[in-house]
Amino acid sequence: MSSASSAERTVSDVGEFELIARLTSTFAKPERADVVVGIGDDTAVISPDPDAELLATCDAQVEGVHFRLDTISPRQLGRRVIAVSQSDIASMGGMPTHALVSAALPGTLPVAHFDEICGGMQEQMATHGGAIVGGNLSRTGHELVIDVSMMGYVRRGGAVTRSGAKPGDAIFVTGDLGASAAGRDLLSTRSAPIPDDLSHLVQAHISPTPRVSEGVSVAGSGAATAMIDISDGLAADLGHICAASGVGAEIMQAEVPVAEGVAAAAQLRGKDPWEYVLRGGEDYELLFTVAAAQLNQFRVIFKELPIPIRRIGRILPQENGIHIVAPGGERRSLAGKGWDHFGGD
Amino acid sequence: MSSASSAERTVSDVGEFELIARLTSTFAKPERADVVVGIGDDTAVISPDPDAELLATCDAQVEGVHFRLDTISPRQLGRRVIAVSQSDIASMGGMPTHALVSAALPGTLPVAHFDEICGGMQEQMATHGGAIVGGNLSRTGHELVIDVSMMGYVRRGGAVTRSGAKPGDAIFVTGDLGASAAGRDLLSTRSAPIPDDLSHLVQAHISPTPRVSEGVSVAGSGAATAMIDISDGLAADLGHICAASGVGAEIMQAEVPVAEGVAAAAQLRGKDPWEYVLRGGEDYELLFTVAAAQLNQFRVIFKELPIPIRRIGRILPQENGIHIVAPGGERRSLAGKGWDHFGGD
Repeated sequence: MSSASSAERTVSDVGEFELIARLTSTFAKPERADVVVGIGDDTAVISPDPDAELLATCDAQVEGVHFRLDTISPRQLGRRVIAVSQSDIASMGGMPTHALVSAALPGTLPVAHFDEICGGMQEQMATHGGAIVGGNLSRTGHELVIDVSMMGYVRRGGAVTRSGAKPGDAIFVTGDLGASAAGRDLLSTRSAPIPDDLSHLVQAHISPTPRVSEGVSVAGSGAATAMIDISDGLAADLGHICAASGVGAEIMQAEVPVAEGVAAAAQLRGKDPWEYVLRGGEDYELLFTVAAAQLNQFRVIFKELPIPIRRIGRILPQENGIHIVAPGGERRSLAGKGWDHFGGD
Repeated sequence: MSSASSAERTVSDVGEFELIARLTSTFAKPERADVVVGIGDDTAVISPDPDAELLATCDAQVEGVHFRLDTISPRQLGRRVIAVSQSDIASMGGMPTHALVSAALPGTLPVAHFDEICGGMQEQMATHGGAIVGGNLSRTGHELVIDVSMMGYVRRGGAVTRSGAKPGDAIFVTGDLGASAAGRDLLSTRSAPIPDDLSHLVQAHISPTPRVSEGVSVAGSGAATAMIDISDGLAADLGHICAASGVGAEIMQAEVPVAEGVAAAAQLRGKDPWEYVLRGGEDYELLFTVAAAQLNQFRVIFKELPIPIRRIGRILPQENGIHIVAPGGERRSLAGKGWDHFGGD
């Protein structure tokens, strides 16, 4: 049957020019008025917002390192690669507006998967009114690699970097933590079935939600002194803020919002749930600091946000180091690494 | 000796955080005043040029597909990945200003190679006053993949796309063609030594020069109706202009500038030199069209450009197709594919 065989065609079967045609038709005609030229020319042409500053970042997802095609569908993969880059723009307080997508494809990838990946990217990009304006295809011998460059805007002077935290600032986090790492760990045991009541953890890992409107609100409050998205884990990303700002910090363990089901997943896997919460990474929640003098002003914003925000600690002078304080008062150092792509263990 | 063992350390040995520190120190402190935040935060922050339009493009280079580390040095590779993206900006008439670099590295890559690749990128980016403002590292199991997203500016309304060519326009090309493809072919025969008098062909393949000032001048003349850089080969890239513009074309074979040594290389390899010239690709010369009424105006620009420009043919109505006319008057179709990354043959 020709339709069945068509569904199983690979990217090698159809060739680069047809793949480009498919990609172009998925991403063509963005609704954004500022896209002068979209996909299909040597470069995209964008009419910049003169009142804003441009944000730009890139992130690659590599098969076997960041995802496995037996645990994530092609459409989910497409959504995920866009979502994690939107999160980087959100963590500066910006709106993600334009993306470039570069895919290195193994020749054996089914064309149907390619189409689904593109469809997922388009879907996720549209959730915040953005457009995919450029792309590149190349072949790879082994792993599928998708690299996304995301651009966005923030009002002039309004970007919240990692480097503005000061001793006395309060530390906040959006949402709750640990679900993605617990879900990733459950997925890693291919043989064991995942209990129904823990499937939301897998979902959290596969389909993270970038906190775009939250990031814009936090930055817009004018009260935030530093912000980052939690991709390496709370411990490592707090460490990034502290290193960039030249400060220390103290987290109250009792205040850290742990996602539902994380404790159960840890028990099932014989792990410490705090490993997921502090070092797991890929939560894509926002971690930010607010000057003590502006806490009241910030509380107004706080109540308007669609998701809960929790105050979990405070910034200290650098010589205090970075610690977590247990409910009984015991202090443990949070120094060390989160999730190292190249390291040994 | 510790210095010898240090020179042989791999990216797996040193881990992601040290690699990021090395990359950050290579790319830190760009001299451009418009870089508000460079490498080291969640995104770069750029103060956009309010009088210009933003250009953005991405291009990936994959080990084993676009380069082999036994025929290109790490520093040359770094220069090349930046140069080919600068060429895309040039082909719209823009100045390349800011780049994001995403590298997927096999764990076995020597750290010294990583440093050299970064150094080469920095060197090439600086040739046109640009800055690398963001990066991402990930691990790959096999091939080294380097993806560059390049941004640049062109005056508002001044971008020269592929789609503006009209019947009657003259077709021009910068420099000469075929050297890169001939050099690539010579490199592909690992066993045979490359004659000294053909080494410039290899050089042309390994170290292409993006025609940045030429592109800016051509666009600035206001006379160009369409432009593209020759990455897929003259035949394919002329085809891209014709498809986007809805026109046909006729190239006079006697006018096409063939690079020195291309005929000798073809003889050595038992090939047709016109395969290199028409279908070889990776010349990174500019192919553009000029309205007949503006040819005189354009000739002024023509004489000021640092490299030769050659008029090679004319745009025709679409129904005429795309042909090359031999000195004896014989017409051959140029339709078909240039260099297909996925195709069979």
